Amino acid sequence: MASSNANALAKKEFEDVFPILTEEFLKEVNSRKLPQEAFEWIKKNIHHNVFGGKMNRGMSVVDSIKILKGGETSNEDLFKARVLGWCVEWLQAFFLVADDIMDASITRRGNPCWYKMEGVGTIAINDSFILESSVYFFLKKYFRQEPYYVDLLELFHEITLDTELGQLIDLITAPEDNVDLNRFSMEKYKYIVLYKTAFYSFYLPVALAMHMAGIKNVLAFQKAKDILLPLGEYFQIQDDYLDCFGDPNVIGKIGTDIEDNKCSWCINQALMIASSEQRKLLDKHYGKKNPEDVSIIKQVYKDLNLEELYREYEENSYTILTELISQLDENIIKKDIFLEYMNKIYKRTK
Amino acid sequence: MASSNANALAKKEFEDVFPILTEEFLKEVNSRKLPQEAFEWIKKNIHHNVFGGKMNRGMSVVDSIKILKGGETSNEDLFKARVLGWCVEWLQAFFLVADDIMDASITRRGNPCWYKMEGVGTIAINDSFILESSVYFFLKKYFRQEPYYVDLLELFHEITLDTELGQLIDLITAPEDNVDLNRFSMEKYKYIVLYKTAFYSFYLPVALAMHMAGIKNVLAFQKAKDILLPLGEYFQIQDDYLDCFGDPNVIGKIGTDIEDNKCSWCINQALMIASSEQRKLLDKHYGKKNPEDVSIIKQVYKDLNLEELYREYEENSYTILTELISQLDENIIKKDIFLEYMNKIYKRTK
Ligand SMILES: [Mg+2]
Ligand SMILES: [Mg+2]
Ligand SMILES: [Mg+2]
Ligand SMILES: [Mg+2]
Ligand SMILES: [Mg+2]
Ligand SMILES: [Mg+2]
Repeated sequence: MASSNANALAKKEFEDVFPILTEEFLKEVNSRKLPQEAFEWIKKNIHHNVFGGKMNRGMSVVDSIKILKGGETSNEDLFKARVLGWCVEWLQAFFLVADDIMDASITRRGNPCWYKMEGVGTIAINDSFILESSVYFFLKKYFRQEPYYVDLLELFHEITLDTELGQLIDLITAPEDNVDLNRFSMEKYKYIVLYKTAFYSFYLPVALAMHMAGIKNVLAFQKAKDILLPLGEYFQIQDDYLDCFGDPNVIGKIGTDIEDNKCSWCINQALMIASSEQRKLLDKHYGKKNPEDVSIIKQVYKDLNLEELYREYEENSYTILTELISQLDENIIKKDIFLEYMNKIYKRTK
Repeated sequence: MASSNANALAKKEFEDVFPILTEEFLKEVNSRKLPQEAFEWIKKNIHHNVFGGKMNRGMSVVDSIKILKGGETSNEDLFKARVLGWCVEWLQAFFLVADDIMDASITRRGNPCWYKMEGVGTIAINDSFILESSVYFFLKKYFRQEPYYVDLLELFHEITLDTELGQLIDLITAPEDNVDLNRFSMEKYKYIVLYKTAFYSFYLPVALAMHMAGIKNVLAFQKAKDILLPLGEYFQIQDDYLDCFGDPNVIGKIGTDIEDNKCSWCINQALMIASSEQRKLLDKHYGKKNPEDVSIIKQVYKDLNLEELYREYEENSYTILTELISQLDENIIKKDIFLEYMNKIYKRTK
């Protein structure tokens, strides 16, 4: 693995592409002789919503191309991988701006949600559309000449639909104003995670790099899915686990999944094994903002030994994925892409 | 022009493609083993939002291909043109579902707006996304093998961005809760109409048919724009005029642009020529729900002779467009496409 210095440099080089893309998009918009206030609005939209995340998804494209092309990775390759990485970040911004409205969230990344900003409100819906449209502007600008241009377009279309379907199930399964644990199930939970998160966060960045590297073999993409989607599931389960059991000083935030009526791994796992007494407690106290309700839920989780069950799940999932990777034919797809991911994600505490 | 019987048949044949496409999209969604409730939700979303409009935009693709290919139009061509027509209708549904939320509208096409339906609310935002994604699913399904597939994708991307930019200016120019006529101007008005309406309603359907007909000449597309965009402007100005001066029995609805603080042609025209006395009346009474306020505005419009000014604008625009069409080189693009449009739109009373 790269040293932390090299990581910081790679991140910096990735960040440096953001102003270039922002500038290009604003130039495009300006060519339509937009009124000045609209121009300024779009600039704020981009800066508020696209920049400032962890950029893991975007950086994954860059990391993947380095592994796939190895010593033959040119500076142009790196630039293009960064552009694709930012396309993933832009796509995510599109999802998150809208998600915050639908979830009635207040803050995101330590700032007010975009729709909560003075004078924005539901205009944020159209702003999210503009963020999505930017992706296709960038793809056209930088990849139009490439033989894999259509593959990129179709991949973004498909993953966008996957994510929207996951979002739909999430929205109709766990409406915040109507707590009903009967709606939850581990099956639905895994479906939501797969579609809402794993496709765009895990499969998309690697698949983009694979197209760039000229990989055409459908089997290679299937293998990548077979590994990256379960890895994405593990990542979300870990996220849900840490929300409840992680150390707030380490993860950098205080979890609120229980009070927010989230369809989390913890509650779904608990529902599967709770006694009827425990189930009553879960029904009565889940999704309530009151700290006493929350601590009753946490006590049930403890009594059900969720920590132990999580450890088992983690070990098991690690074993399965390691096995899947070891069986890969390196002529089809390099193992290192997935090993890198595994190392980043397993046993993280934040 | 086709007789009204032939028109009814053409419309029926267009309508018949809707259930085919709906079925295909639902099959695609089902292949992901979506929970039943999500499947039913998407079905309702499509039926509520895509079907039931005037379908002028969608039918334009079919009318255009018939003219472009003439006697050589095959049944397959017709089917494909209908699919593209529905793609325009689906795209419009995406825009309208979101527009109704942003405008806090109550009804659409005589039904409650989708977001106003029981249990929907802001989930409608994600539902609008799914409608947009359907467009790219249809394009892939039916046009993937065509040499103009990428042209279709790029055209939809570009027109989508145009429409979103128009929507943005509209939203920040005329917020419903804050009446300020200083924000209005004929220049902004024309910009909004051009981007928010004319591109997707007038240029897009014809451009789609042109791609289908194998037209590659950039000049042909430029000429189509030169005519169809001003025609779209005229159409909207006419719509605004009829909202205020049309006979409700004929246009089938009672206009509310004045009470809704709409950035309409009428108010922008009035602002250009009002005396300072009249301006005071406009400032005081525009955008108010009270019928007395509305009739004061209408009296100012009358005093300013807006009806006469509209007739002049109409004659003038008709002359210019007729002239532009007559100058067209038929080797580049057929005149009939535009003449058909002209006949449909000029001097309509509803
Ligand atoms: Mg959220
Ligand atoms: Mg959400
Ligand atoms: Mg979480
Ligand atoms: Mg509206
Ligand atoms: Mg509107
Ligand atoms: Mg109108």
